[in-house]
Amino acid sequence: MSASAPGGAVEPFDAVDVIRIKRDGGQVPDDALRWMIDAYTREYVADSQMAAFAMSVLLNGMTRDEIRVMTDAMIASGERMSFAGLGKPTVDKHSTGGVGDKITLPLAPLVASFGPAVPQLSGRGLGHTGGTLDKLESIRGWRAALSNDEIFGQLQDVGAVICAAGTGLAPADKRLYALRDVTGTVEAIPLIASSIMSKKIAEGTDALVLDVKFGSGAFMKDVDRARELAEAMVALGTDSGVATTALLTNMDTPLGLTIGNANEVRESVEVLAGGGPADVVELTVALAREMLTLAGQPDADVEAALKDGRAMDTWRAMIRAQDGDPDAPLPTPRETHVVTAPASGVVGAMEALPFGVAAWRLGAGRARAQDPVVHAAGIDLHVKPGDKVTAGQPLFTLLADDEKRFARALDALEGAWSIGAEAPASAPLVLERITA
Amino acid sequence: MSASAPGGAVEPFDAVDVIRIKRDGGQVPDDALRWMIDAYTREYVADSQMAAFAMSVLLNGMTRDEIRVMTDAMIASGERMSFAGLGKPTVDKHSTGGVGDKITLPLAPLVASFGPAVPQLSGRGLGHTGGTLDKLESIRGWRAALSNDEIFGQLQDVGAVICAAGTGLAPADKRLYALRDVTGTVEAIPLIASSIMSKKIAEGTDALVLDVKFGSGAFMKDVDRARELAEAMVALGTDSGVATTALLTNMDTPLGLTIGNANEVRESVEVLAGGGPADVVELTVALAREMLTLAGQPDADVEAALKDGRAMDTWRAMIRAQDGDPDAPLPTPRETHVVTAPASGVVGAMEALPFGVAAWRLGAGRARAQDPVVHAAGIDLHVKPGDKVTAGQPLFTLLADDEKRFARALDALEGAWSIGAEAPASAPLVLERITA
Repeated sequence: MSASAPGGAVEPFDAVDVIRIKRDGGQVPDDALRWMIDAYTREYVADSQMAAFAMSVLLNGMTRDEIRVMTDAMIASGERMSFAGLGKPTVDKHSTGGVGDKITLPLAPLVASFGPAVPQLSGRGLGHTGGTLDKLESIRGWRAALSNDEIFGQLQDVGAVICAAGTGLAPADKRLYALRDVTGTVEAIPLIASSIMSKKIAEGTDALVLDVKFGSGAFMKDVDRARELAEAMVALGTDSGVATTALLTNMDTPLGLTIGNANEVRESVEVLAGGGPADVVELTVALAREMLTLAGQPDADVEAALKDGRAMDTWRAMIRAQDGDPDAPLPTPRETHVVTAPASGVVGAMEALPFGVAAWRLGAGRARAQDPVVHAAGIDLHVKPGDKVTAGQPLFTLLADDEKRFARALDALEGAWSIGAEAPASAPLVLERITA
Repeated sequence: MSASAPGGAVEPFDAVDVIRIKRDGGQVPDDALRWMIDAYTREYVADSQMAAFAMSVLLNGMTRDEIRVMTDAMIASGERMSFAGLGKPTVDKHSTGGVGDKITLPLAPLVASFGPAVPQLSGRGLGHTGGTLDKLESIRGWRAALSNDEIFGQLQDVGAVICAAGTGLAPADKRLYALRDVTGTVEAIPLIASSIMSKKIAEGTDALVLDVKFGSGAFMKDVDRARELAEAMVALGTDSGVATTALLTNMDTPLGLTIGNANEVRESVEVLAGGGPADVVELTVALAREMLTLAGQPDADVEAALKDGRAMDTWRAMIRAQDGDPDAPLPTPRETHVVTAPASGVVGAMEALPFGVAAWRLGAGRARAQDPVVHAAGIDLHVKPGDKVTAGQPLFTLLADDEKRFARALDALEGAWSIGAEAPASAPLVLERITA
């Protein structure tokens, strides 16, 4: 099990041997697995070799120990942050992504208003689920890129930060994620778990709450797979010294009444003002309770902080700290297209995935990482499943900067909603709580 | 299932979709599989994508139809030869490779001496199993590279050709084979079968006999896996219109009494002269009978052609046609090292793999494709398992151009042979015959 590297240095392992162990259903020894990730990061192990390894992991799985070691190796491939000097507990949230999922926006200031620091290092959207940074960039002046010192100072002063994750965190994961995307290995639960958790653990948070979504608009369509992922991540966080819990939440229907960027900010502010759609409030409150429980405040009155303006104060301070103007008007779309009820009746299921795809086609999301998003684009919903409507009543409004976008968005929505005689079966938003 | 190619042409399929089908245990539609191989050949599909696909094939298998379509696509990636104009049947042999396996050398002229054309397009050795071309290049003046016209002419005039396979045959296989070597996907039976058979079918032979080896010195250690491979290849040949049968043969012990290059030529000539070791004769005769049966001569008296000089005449004509001098002395080694019996008794098992590795370390094989081989290097055996010996009697002789090579060769042979009280259990050389 040794090979000569270009230049003559001797490598302690050989990629083919490591691949074979996993291919044949074995457990890869710790040092070999660490070497594999390290050697991939320095490009000694080729993309083709890592692709074969990733497919073996997808088909043969990994033990809890292997997932921990691989995650640890991905963390070791880059920078590791620490908020130990803050003098207050840190607690973070991660969502596996959904349609209309703006929960981070009200949640971070809400939790921070109780004292804990909430370092919410986020990404941009790609595909049908929007990115938190894209949404916040609808706010005039707001800046996603912060230095580590700025993050630390803002956590100290304001308590909440939502900003771009530095490129120095888990670089092995960045390379592996791009590879998985083109090799049909995105769906491997050990790889998803280690990808998410390597970044979250490298961020140095004390505690983490995971919002693992299932349903038509989620990455995991199937609830059993979502549960498996949640359990793997909770085990991994726990094994790595991060207090971790997860909620399994339904993503069959878009969250709230807005899908896009600026409109999702508007809705988030409504929640922070004590209003907002019931489902967004319910999930925000449920996740805030989880986070505050992990931060040592299981009895915090979360709803009160939404009603009495404390969460809103923290929001405003957080936006201002990143050069944003919380009072500036949000961008509005040049063109709108209203879809009305063709008949009177009850609104049936509204499928999250096609609504997400439609918003993306309207310009709210990007097809390629380098594309810009249209902040004012998206969809405003006027009704939710189970609502009674009369013929001609507005159901939802498409928002875009160019009316040419409407046709393909309407194509995506074909069959995604209906008006019927009976209310659709309703499912709980929060299905299960998963703990170590 | 479509994607834009660089340059704007639209590809009819997407590699990730194809990978996913196989990953999830499905059958890849014919047109998608053909596209995958074609797009890989023109480097639109990346190595990493093909590696993930190959691992999916290894772990989830392929149907008989898929193997046929993939093989067909690999054939279509390059040149296809035809010997239809020869006016005589063509029959070919392929061995999966073993230690001391020089059977092609006596076999091709033996079969051709009965009339059929034997186009034996061969490769060079890499690792512990030698290459047929390396062995023949021990003969002064002999030339492995022939043009297609030269091959055709020699088949017409002499009947037998052993030469280098052109680089135009199944180029997709060449790229895929190199990829499998570094990604732990060599062992996938559908990929082995299609790799071997794409080249053999592209050669345009009417009939094919496969020598599929199992045991310690074979690529397939396990007889059940060897049988599975043989069955896959026989099915594939049959489905492609090539009359194909296979013999499952034992490769626990080196074939014959020579392992190397020049010494294997010497032994082959002994067989052609009506002598030679019993096992080499047995396998040569068995394979010749199979080939002649497929060529319409089931009752040919194969042994007679070895005894009466007909096979030798064809051998000499074949060597001369490629500028070789069949009467020139073969190269001899500068250094020899004799290993003698440490005690009197019976020779136990002689394990093929370590003897192959030892010959390779002596210089008979190459570690890298660009390395030369030492034609005089190798091992001469003086005894076979079950032979009675007295203490001090020579067991085998190591042959090399540099005595420094002996130590590592002897290391490889440590524990690979023994002298005991009883003869080892003997196994039949030809275990099974596999037909469509």
